[in-house]
Amino acid sequence: MIKIGIVGYGNLARGVECALKHDPDMTLAAVFTRRDPGAVKIQTPNVPVLPLEDAPLWKDRIDVMILCAGSATDLPKMTPALAKDFNVIDSFDTHANIPAHFAAVDAAASESGHIAFISVGWDPGLFSLNRLYASAILPNGKDYTFWGKGVSQGHSDAVRRLPGVIDCRQYTIPVAEAMERVRKGEMPQLTTREKHTRYCYVVAEEGADKAKIEEAIKTMPNYFADYDTTVEFITMEQMKQDHSGLPHGGSVIRSGITGWEGENRQTIEFSLKLDSNPQFTASVLVACARAAVKMRERGATGCKTMFDAAPADLSPMSREEMLAHML
Amino acid sequence: MIKIGIVGYGNLARGVECALKHDPDMTLAAVFTRRDPGAVKIQTPNVPVLPLEDAPLWKDRIDVMILCAGSATDLPKMTPALAKDFNVIDSFDTHANIPAHFAAVDAAASESGHIAFISVGWDPGLFSLNRLYASAILPNGKDYTFWGKGVSQGHSDAVRRLPGVIDCRQYTIPVAEAMERVRKGEMPQLTTREKHTRYCYVVAEEGADKAKIEEAIKTMPNYFADYDTTVEFITMEQMKQDHSGLPHGGSVIRSGITGWEGENRQTIEFSLKLDSNPQFTASVLVACARAAVKMRERGATGCKTMFDAAPADLSPMSREEMLAHML
Repeated sequence: MIKIGIVGYGNLARGVECALKHDPDMTLAAVFTRRDPGAVKIQTPNVPVLPLEDAPLWKDRIDVMILCAGSATDLPKMTPALAKDFNVIDSFDTHANIPAHFAAVDAAASESGHIAFISVGWDPGLFSLNRLYASAILPNGKDYTFWGKGVSQGHSDAVRRLPGVIDCRQYTIPVAEAMERVRKGEMPQLTTREKHTRYCYVVAEEGADKAKIEEAIKTMPNYFADYDTTVEFITMEQMKQDHSGLPHGGSVIRSGITGWEGENRQTIEFSLKLDSNPQFTASVLVACARAAVKMRERGATGCKTMFDAAPADLSPMSREEMLAHML
Repeated sequence: MIKIGIVGYGNLARGVECALKHDPDMTLAAVFTRRDPGAVKIQTPNVPVLPLEDAPLWKDRIDVMILCAGSATDLPKMTPALAKDFNVIDSFDTHANIPAHFAAVDAAASESGHIAFISVGWDPGLFSLNRLYASAILPNGKDYTFWGKGVSQGHSDAVRRLPGVIDCRQYTIPVAEAMERVRKGEMPQLTTREKHTRYCYVVAEEGADKAKIEEAIKTMPNYFADYDTTVEFITMEQMKQDHSGLPHGGSVIRSGITGWEGENRQTIEFSLKLDSNPQFTASVLVACARAAVKMRERGATGCKTMFDAAPADLSPMSREEMLAHML
């Protein structure tokens, strides 16, 4: 049994807790929190909730610590710190800062002799490794990533911070025509606006200037200015009834050409359609925890990504089962 | 530069030769054939074509030998034999015999200190590893493999052997309704007949009994009896004009459920759409040759499959490039 610790207890952590229930080779050992442990009620019976600062006391009782915390400020400090005592998994997803995060985590994990997987999930994660496989197989090609239809939490939060806004759910929607052109192997040049549209459901304060809110959303730099955005005002009741889930998904498509004259088009597509983004991401984290244990047993240390784990390492199957049933 | 040898010179081997042209880190060293080498004309200038029995003389001049031969009778002997002197890659695709082939190749490669990848391609190969990833991530689910629309060479050959038949091209076609049900996460039980249909374009001898040929095809056990099959007789001119390519493709779809009450459906799909099946398979073989070299340099020996290669090992990119651009 692989003994798992969880740091944090938000949506992602609850997804990890639930995923562990389905895995016969793993068990939840403890949950660590920066909040008052007494105020955190978890689902699994007989598992302690402890203050994060007690984590080092558990270093011999946990095989892998799964870090369910934010990429903006938490993980850059937390992952290297916990890699001193544990094998760790995080879902660091600030793409631009991955090289720096990798370096910091690699230094800590290499020195302590642990293994630390960063940027695990679906993007970064499964989408990344599909981009890598596809580019290795079709060097003469071009790849495209489409996200959605799904809820972008970062964009929803950005709207929520506007004056007069009580709540927002922002859906990222891929442009169907653009996807069709890519799937046909046209290899088009696509602008940001041509690939995705954005749709915001907004609950406004009573008496708020809705036209002003809509304008503020549509012109928000980085988040919305480069997209065709639709804003729809709804009531809090509608929000709760129709938008309580966190669905997401998307596709990575690479099309390339082969042949002496470049006469053949070859298209590789990997797609996800997820009712629950955090529960799916959690499922990937848990599979990578298994890989971490297997790789550490073979002597690997330092920082790793999903690029470094052989597919077999993520699976609980024996080699014989894989050869007979999966190959 | 990774020095590649090719055994055989059929469609797959020509695909390998062509793929090497696109890879800046690989070069073709020699082609080995069981035919008269003088009768084999290859595309690459200044590369020798040699009798297969001379291969051992090249053991120090070739990093990886890619075996482009048949699974029925050639590879079961050829792969273990060549693994005595070379790192090898094959595309052995008789699913039921993979465990026995693995054992024979592993014994030879382990003893000689080489690395031998078997069953590389898309199915077995990329489809297999997508089945493995998806089952590791969504243990509570069910997966489906659909093939086509594409030419099945085994089925085409089976029809060609019937009396009165000059030529045949057999297309395997997935049933769109079945795929839609799977994509929606219904997890249906599907019979063989419900998943795929078969379509045969047949050129018959002049005066042949077409009704008898059609009956013989539709009732052929293993190949057609369990499917809804359509037979269409065409002329040799139509065959050459409309059916000279070898397109193929398909999808691996796993849908699973997550959540404490199993309330969320999650669907993972991997699809290929290929103008040229042999050229694409060749592209996968070449990427795995790169992985073989990297893994052998780290000390690995014995028989491997795509389950054992980390995605990073297939790519020519440096770690820095992967972290910055692919993750």
